[in-house]
Amino acid sequence: MSTLLQELIAKGLLIPTGVDGVYGRGGVFEDVLLRFDGYISRLAIEDKADVMRFPPLVTRENFEKSGYLKSFPHLAGPVFSFNRPPADHATLLERVQAKEPWGDMLEMTDTVLTPAACYPVYPTLAHAPLAKGGRLVDVLSYCFRHEPSIDPARMQMFRMREFIRIASAEECHAWRDQWIERAGHWLQDLGLPAESAVANDPFFGRGGKMLAANQRSQELKFELVVPIATPESPTAIMSFNYHQEHFEKTFGITQADGEVAHTACVGFGMERVTLALFKFHGLDPDKWPAGVRDRLFG
Amino acid sequence: MSTLLQELIAKGLLIPTGVDGVYGRGGVFEDVLLRFDGYISRLAIEDKADVMRFPPLVTRENFEKSGYLKSFPHLAGPVFSFNRPPADHATLLERVQAKEPWGDMLEMTDTVLTPAACYPVYPTLAHAPLAKGGRLVDVLSYCFRHEPSIDPARMQMFRMREFIRIASAEECHAWRDQWIERAGHWLQDLGLPAESAVANDPFFGRGGKMLAANQRSQELKFELVVPIATPESPTAIMSFNYHQEHFEKTFGITQADGEVAHTACVGFGMERVTLALFKFHGLDPDKWPAGVRDRLFG
Repeated sequence: MSTLLQELIAKGLLIPTGVDGVYGRGGVFEDVLLRFDGYISRLAIEDKADVMRFPPLVTRENFEKSGYLKSFPHLAGPVFSFNRPPADHATLLERVQAKEPWGDMLEMTDTVLTPAACYPVYPTLAHAPLAKGGRLVDVLSYCFRHEPSIDPARMQMFRMREFIRIASAEECHAWRDQWIERAGHWLQDLGLPAESAVANDPFFGRGGKMLAANQRSQELKFELVVPIATPESPTAIMSFNYHQEHFEKTFGITQADGEVAHTACVGFGMERVTLALFKFHGLDPDKWPAGVRDRLFG
Repeated sequence: MSTLLQELIAKGLLIPTGVDGVYGRGGVFEDVLLRFDGYISRLAIEDKADVMRFPPLVTRENFEKSGYLKSFPHLAGPVFSFNRPPADHATLLERVQAKEPWGDMLEMTDTVLTPAACYPVYPTLAHAPLAKGGRLVDVLSYCFRHEPSIDPARMQMFRMREFIRIASAEECHAWRDQWIERAGHWLQDLGLPAESAVANDPFFGRGGKMLAANQRSQELKFELVVPIATPESPTAIMSFNYHQEHFEKTFGITQADGEVAHTACVGFGMERVTLALFKFHGLDPDKWPAGVRDRLFG
């Protein structure tokens, strides 16, 4: 277990559950996270973003269409259920009692845990062409990635807030690039010296290396990183993605003029930012620098 | 689809996803829900409840121990994942592409979607005897129940806030009964004429009828109900449960004197209360009665 994780648990900021990467949040941790959420909301209001909030599920049909299984099959979390006659119930309970596997008695449901806050949004935009100027959507959701880890900044379920811009290629690209600028200053106001860097997603398997190299060379993904768990491998606390027309082709989202729309998104790792604040300013928010406190709690 | 659901969707309060019981929440719906959450928080602060927030997961080990599969196997949502060598990835994608089943290529993970906000709490209390007077814990979480329905008040994933009292049998019983009184007035202040009634959980199978009858005769569960979808079958918006020593025996939670603790909990169906507010006061919160607006938005 990392030293930071031990300290967070000892202070009651995180609560262990017995599974790596699955923690409860104590009241002080949660309060800081919600304050940071409020700090983002001021920008959302300024930008007139449309608020949508989904439970942490995406429909299996849309998940299959999305292409996620091509790139990240190992991280996905489909939801299963017991859908058999009452006569099989005794067998299920015997298996559980005997600590024997019981997964083969279940079947897939129509839902999958969402891997990113934006996934449920795209299919809802396909019913009619976008209004002129496109859309700006504000989402927040718990997200699931099956990567059990002892790094507290790599949880299996964590919250992601995202702004999603759905518009022309030029508008999306410009919006994404302005956000990289804007976010750097904005995080520095919280005492987080985040640095921006070209990045890639953790694509699966041998073919994944090519996808990652391609993503980098096209500069589709940037991250703002700060050291949390170790100084050597800093953690991304925000990401800035340009998806080109991937989701719009997949789900049939068109602009006002009938052209296929593009998307870009800006994501905030809510637990990661919260952890970074504790890492940089100490485990007691009452003792944080006045400027940081004013911005978050003022 | 019910008329209420159609109206909620037409107004942008709920956003359909293509799966019954899985909806996005529009900005106005979410704002009302969060305001009601704040209205509860005033009581939590008054009562000095300890805040804990868990992601919507319970570990499989604790889920198996909890006994949920005995009573409600059909509602559970274990999380699965793809845990095979890269060579099997192509087969997975072929199956998805051909719309053939792919669930048999996955295996159970160590986590299950939590069916109630309180489930992750109990195991965390087993490390040491409770302090004198016991505990009062405040949780909020999305919960999952696999019961696809067209009733907007019966979602597959919904938020539940709960207060959990862990103490002696007498303290739990008295606390639960006081809450039934308190909640009735408190909901009437929001213009919700909720009525209390003895209730039972939807236990599975033939044996379930006996469990339900037993729960009723012992008055272990009460609900406050209001008509939402139909006047004939009102919906529970709050529930008041006395679990006796079920969870404490299961997880080994003892009082200060070494006796096994008991628990009671009070649960708020966050989406259901929000729906009830829209049902009783209309779909535009700007036009709600002044008293209700003051209490929620003031």
